Amino acid sequence: MAVNLEAPDKLLPVRGVRLAACASGIKKKPLTDLVIIELNDNANCSAVFTQNRFRAAPVIIAEKNLIISSPKLLMINSGNANAGTGETGFNDAVTTCEYAAAAIGCDKNQVLPFSTGVIGESLPIDCFEEALPELVDRLETDAWLIAAQGIMTTDTVAKGFTTQFVIDDVTVTLTGIAKGSGMIKPNMATMLSYIATDANIHKGLLSDCLKTAVELSFNSITVDGDTSTNDSCVLIATGESGASEIKTKDHRYDAFMVALNEVMQYLAQAIVRDAEGVTKFVEVKVLNALSYQDAKVIAYTVAHSPLVKTALFASDPNWGRILAAVGRAEIDSLDVDKLAIYLDDICIVSEGGRDKNYTEEAGQRVMSKAEILITIDLSEGNKQASVWTSDLSYDYVKINAEYRT
Amino acid sequence: MAVNLEAPDKLLPVRGVRLAACASGIKKKPLTDLVIIELNDNANCSAVFTQNRFRAAPVIIAEKNLIISSPKLLMINSGNANAGTGETGFNDAVTTCEYAAAAIGCDKNQVLPFSTGVIGESLPIDCFEEALPELVDRLETDAWLIAAQGIMTTDTVAKGFTTQFVIDDVTVTLTGIAKGSGMIKPNMATMLSYIATDANIHKGLLSDCLKTAVELSFNSITVDGDTSTNDSCVLIATGESGASEIKTKDHRYDAFMVALNEVMQYLAQAIVRDAEGVTKFVEVKVLNALSYQDAKVIAYTVAHSPLVKTALFASDPNWGRILAAVGRAEIDSLDVDKLAIYLDDICIVSEGGRDKNYTEEAGQRVMSKAEILITIDLSEGNKQASVWTSDLSYDYVKINAEYRT
Repeated sequence: MAVNLEAPDKLLPVRGVRLAACASGIKKKPLTDLVIIELNDNANCSAVFTQNRFRAAPVIIAEKNLIISSPKLLMINSGNANAGTGETGFNDAVTTCEYAAAAIGCDKNQVLPFSTGVIGESLPIDCFEEALPELVDRLETDAWLIAAQGIMTTDTVAKGFTTQFVIDDVTVTLTGIAKGSGMIKPNMATMLSYIATDANIHKGLLSDCLKTAVELSFNSITVDGDTSTNDSCVLIATGESGASEIKTKDHRYDAFMVALNEVMQYLAQAIVRDAEGVTKFVEVKVLNALSYQDAKVIAYTVAHSPLVKTALFASDPNWGRILAAVGRAEIDSLDVDKLAIYLDDICIVSEGGRDKNYTEEAGQRVMSKAEILITIDLSEGNKQASVWTSDLSYDYVKINAEYRT
Repeated sequence: MAVNLEAPDKLLPVRGVRLAACASGIKKKPLTDLVIIELNDNANCSAVFTQNRFRAAPVIIAEKNLIISSPKLLMINSGNANAGTGETGFNDAVTTCEYAAAAIGCDKNQVLPFSTGVIGESLPIDCFEEALPELVDRLETDAWLIAAQGIMTTDTVAKGFTTQFVIDDVTVTLTGIAKGSGMIKPNMATMLSYIATDANIHKGLLSDCLKTAVELSFNSITVDGDTSTNDSCVLIATGESGASEIKTKDHRYDAFMVALNEVMQYLAQAIVRDAEGVTKFVEVKVLNALSYQDAKVIAYTVAHSPLVKTALFASDPNWGRILAAVGRAEIDSLDVDKLAIYLDDICIVSEGGRDKNYTEEAGQRVMSKAEILITIDLSEGNKQASVWTSDLSYDYVKINAEYRT
C-alpha cells in the first residue's frame, strides 16, 4: 500500500511527443507491457544510465544510439529486463529496434530500447514484431498516463507529474513518468524515467540539466540499496513551445531547473512512496556538514540501515540505531559531542546522548506517522543533503521472496 | 532457529584464566548478565575495537586501560550497551571498574569493561556494586560455558570453541567465546569475543596474531551490514602452558595461527549461524580476483544485498540478483564476459549470462539446502576472499521490529 501516493488524474501532453502502449504478451495479457514514445525531428535528448558493471543489453544499445544518432523513438518494455542474457540478449535487443524502425520508418540506430522486469530470461521478440506496426498507428500526444501504466513492474501506482511555467510569455510544459519500487538505489539514474518538455534547450545544456536534477532526485533515494542493471533516465526537449532557445544558465534556465527539479523529485519520491512493502515514507536530512558529499554519505547510511528501517516499520523511536548508523558512515571529521538528531521537530539526541528533554512518548508520536523527517545536525559546516527512504517490513521480504513464484 | 549450531558440550579451561558469571539484575532475573574474566599476572592481552565513530563508553575505557596498564580483569555485562549515554554513561563505566577493582584487589585501570545490549539507556550500576564481591569469590577455571551464556543478548545459542595443539612437546589450549546475532558487520572487531590461550606469546606478536585472524573471521561476516558501537574482540595469552615464548613468525607461530584461525572462524561463523531470523548459512567466495580487497568488496556486496538475501530465504535460485550485486560493487577492472558463478558445484552463470547447461531444477536443489556456497570466479587474477552471511527472513524483521517491546 503506497504512502500518500495516487496515480495522477491527468498528465499534460508535450508538443512534439506522441506515445502509445499495449499489452503485447510479454507480461500475461491484458497487462500493458510495451510503450513507444515518438519524438519530433528537432528534439534534443539526454540520458543517464546505471553505473552497475552489468548493464543490460538495451542499456548498452540505448547509450550507443544516443551518441551516434538523433533518437526518433523510445521503446520500453516491462516484464523482462533482457539482462544477464549474454550475446543472445544483445542480438534480441537489436532485432526489436529493427522491428520498431521498420514500423515507424526510421534508422534502427534512432531507436532507444529500454527493458525492465525479470533478469536472466530471454526477451520474447515475437511479441514486439507482432505488436509494433499496430502500436505505431495509435501514437497520440495525450497518452502519458497509459505509458506510465505500461512501464510498471512491482509498482502498485502509476507515477507521473506535470507542471507548466512561463518563458518569454510562452507557456512551457514539462511532463514525466517513472517506474520502480524495488532494487532501488539508483547510481546516476533511476529504474526508468522519461521526462519531456516543449521548451527549446541547447543540447549541451540539456545534459547539465539532467545530471543536476538526477543528483537531487533519483540519486537521492534508496529502498534496498541494490542498483539495477537497467536504470535509465531520459530527458527530452522538443522545442515546440515556441519559446526561444535556452543556451546559457540565465533566468530562463533557472526557471526551467525549478520546474525540472519539481518533476524529478516528485517522481523519485513517488518510487519510495510505492517501495516494496512500504508503510512509511522517510526523509533523512543531514544539516551543517563540511561537504555535500559527507552529508549524503551519512544520509544514505542511515536511510539504508536495516535496523533503522525495521525500527521505522515498528514505529519504534529507537534513536540508538540512528546514532549507530551515523557513526559507521566513516566520516573522520565527525564530532560525536556536537551532533543533534531530530524526529520531525522533536530533539532526540544532543551532544552525543539522549536529549535531556526527550520523552519516549514524544518520539513515539512522530514515529507513528506515515511520513517522518529525520534531521541530523552535524554542527560542522554549512552543507546539507537529503535522502528519501522507506521502512523494511514483512511485506518487503514477502514480495522479494515470492517475486518469481 | 540457528543453522547447524549447538552450544558446545564442554570448553576446556585455559591455565591462568578464571571466570565467573551471575544474574545481577541488568536483564530480568534469572538471566545471566554479568561475567568476569580474571587473568594471571604475566598474561599478555591484545584487543581490537569497533571502528564506529560512536564508541560506547566502556569501549573507550577498555581501549585506554589496555594501553596504560596490564589488565587483570575483564568485566562484561549483557542487557545494556551503555552506548549513546553521554558523560553519565562514561562515569558509570568508570564507577563499575572501581567496584570491580575493589572486589578483586587491583587498580581500576586494570579492569577492561565491556557492555552489550540496548543502546541509550543508563547502566544500572547498583547491580554491579551488589553482585561483584560475591562473583569474585566464585572465580574458577572451568567456567567458559557459563561465561558464553552470560554474554548473550538476542543470541539463541551460546557460542564457544576449544582446540589444543602441541608446541615443543607441550600441549597448548586455545578456548574462545563470542556473542552476537544482529547489528553485525564488524569493522576491525566483532560484537564481543574473548579468546584465551596458555601459550606464551610475545606481546607485540600477539597483536599481529589477533589482527590477522580477525580479518579472516569477524571481519568477514555480515548479518545486516550494521556495525555496532560496542564491538570488541580480546585475545589473551597467559603463558602458563610451560611452552617457550613465541617471539618470531616461526613454525610455532604458524601452529598457533592455524589453531587461532580455527577458533575465530568457528566463532564468527557461529554468529552468522545464529543470525536474527536465520534459515540459511551462506558462504560467498570470490575467486581469481586481482586483489584480496577486490574479492572482499564483491563478496560483501553480494552477502549484504537484501535482494540476494530474500531470494536465499525463498530458496529461489534467482542468479540475476547475484549478478546485479556483483555488478554494483564498483570494481572497475571487472570483465563481465569472463565471470562465472556457481551454487555449490552447479555453474549458473558463465561468460556473463546463464550457463548453457544450467537448469532451474539443479539450482533449486542447491538453494533448498540450509548451507549454501556461492562461488564467484572473476578469472582476473589469483586472489580470493570469503564472506559468511545469512538470509533475510520475516523473522529478521519481526525480531528487529519488536526488539524493545
